[in-house]
Amino acid sequence: MSIIESKIVMVETSHPGNIGAAARAMKTMAWTNLALVNPQGLDDPSARARATRAYDVLDQAQIFTSMEDAIADCQHVIGVTARTRANAAKAYTPKALLQNLAEQDKAVRVAWVFGRERNGLTNEEIDLCHSICTIPANPEFSSLNIASAVQIICYEVYCSGLQSTLSESQQQAAAIAPSQELEGFYQHCWQTLEKVEFLDAENPVPLQRKFRNIFDRTELTSSEINILRGIFTAILKRF
Amino acid sequence: MSIIESKIVMVETSHPGNIGAAARAMKTMAWTNLALVNPQGLDDPSARARATRAYDVLDQAQIFTSMEDAIADCQHVIGVTARTRANAAKAYTPKALLQNLAEQDKAVRVAWVFGRERNGLTNEEIDLCHSICTIPANPEFSSLNIASAVQIICYEVYCSGLQSTLSESQQQAAAIAPSQELEGFYQHCWQTLEKVEFLDAENPVPLQRKFRNIFDRTELTSSEINILRGIFTAILKRF
Repeated sequence: MSIIESKIVMVETSHPGNIGAAARAMKTMAWTNLALVNPQGLDDPSARARATRAYDVLDQAQIFTSMEDAIADCQHVIGVTARTRANAAKAYTPKALLQNLAEQDKAVRVAWVFGRERNGLTNEEIDLCHSICTIPANPEFSSLNIASAVQIICYEVYCSGLQSTLSESQQQAAAIAPSQELEGFYQHCWQTLEKVEFLDAENPVPLQRKFRNIFDRTELTSSEINILRGIFTAILKRF
Repeated sequence: MSIIESKIVMVETSHPGNIGAAARAMKTMAWTNLALVNPQGLDDPSARARATRAYDVLDQAQIFTSMEDAIADCQHVIGVTARTRANAAKAYTPKALLQNLAEQDKAVRVAWVFGRERNGLTNEEIDLCHSICTIPANPEFSSLNIASAVQIICYEVYCSGLQSTLSESQQQAAAIAPSQELEGFYQHCWQTLEKVEFLDAENPVPLQRKFRNIFDRTELTSSEINILRGIFTAILKRF
């Protein structure tokens, strides 16, 4: 599935600072579509203060008087709640939910619905959701700040869309030096260590093995080998 | 790999509300170990207000006067920054970083270091980090709130299941040298490289950074550090 558009719906949020912080969290993940159901004290300075410079998201927020209206244009409605609800059959973690969505051959408009700071969503509001998303959390202290929960959801959706780009970049990994260069490095190293009388010429192997253990796992690049061999040369010049 | 213990290190945080919010974010993901480097206005009521009921995390926070001291007991130090830095060689997303850690057969103490709200970490502080973690974000508005960034990291580690309980970790004694020993190794290294006139005393930092890139990822054990420092001593004796 692809997500045509995602919307954050905040239902009866009581702290305007949380709305501002949610707007900022959204913008950091390139989301702009914020819907507020009966927000309290939206004109309070704390909303703008916590939005930092995400004023556009805050100013363009749409205000509704019911959750039904706020989600009307969405094809998939996801209720985000930290608590285990009676309706566990449709509850997923963000990662599992995005995995499920990815496997479907559809493009939909999604609403992510966040309830009140104290009481979450009512059972009636939960019933309006097609899925429930529960952010994994400490069972003994699961009360995420609502803007933090918005941040995690926006981040997960942002990352899920990034994955193709990331795997491409992983292919462009820094070039590890071929074995031949690494061996040249080791030979240069033994020569230097003998000169400074650190390596026992009678019985060099145990120390050499410890050295190989270090640098075999380091995956040196060719340019890093050149730097290290430059040092050996600088030391050997002195003898 | 398993993570024996994770620590959040906040460097010169200027808004006490952010420290409180970070404590709450940590507790929702079952983290308790908070280290503060020169925090500003920690007694301000906003710290407790934003901590909600995570007062224990806030009250047990350890205060330090330098990042070096805060990370001294950690074997893997990760700088979390939203910005692309010059030192991109060791920069990963949280997911890629945790994937890398999961593939290693070790148990380590990890520090996740967060810089100042406005200016992040200095280059010198970045140099103390063994990896850089960059949270994917909107390139046009990447300024995550610091507590939101803490929330994402704690959430990702919690979901990864990498963080072992203390009882498990006690069986897997971590062999990787703590940050303090690694820094001693680097200082000895610079001293030696200056003596052999390989390090430009006028402008040592570029080469030092290349060196740190090599050995930060090598995860030297204490005994390997002793071997390498033995070499430095052997070389220095000749001058």
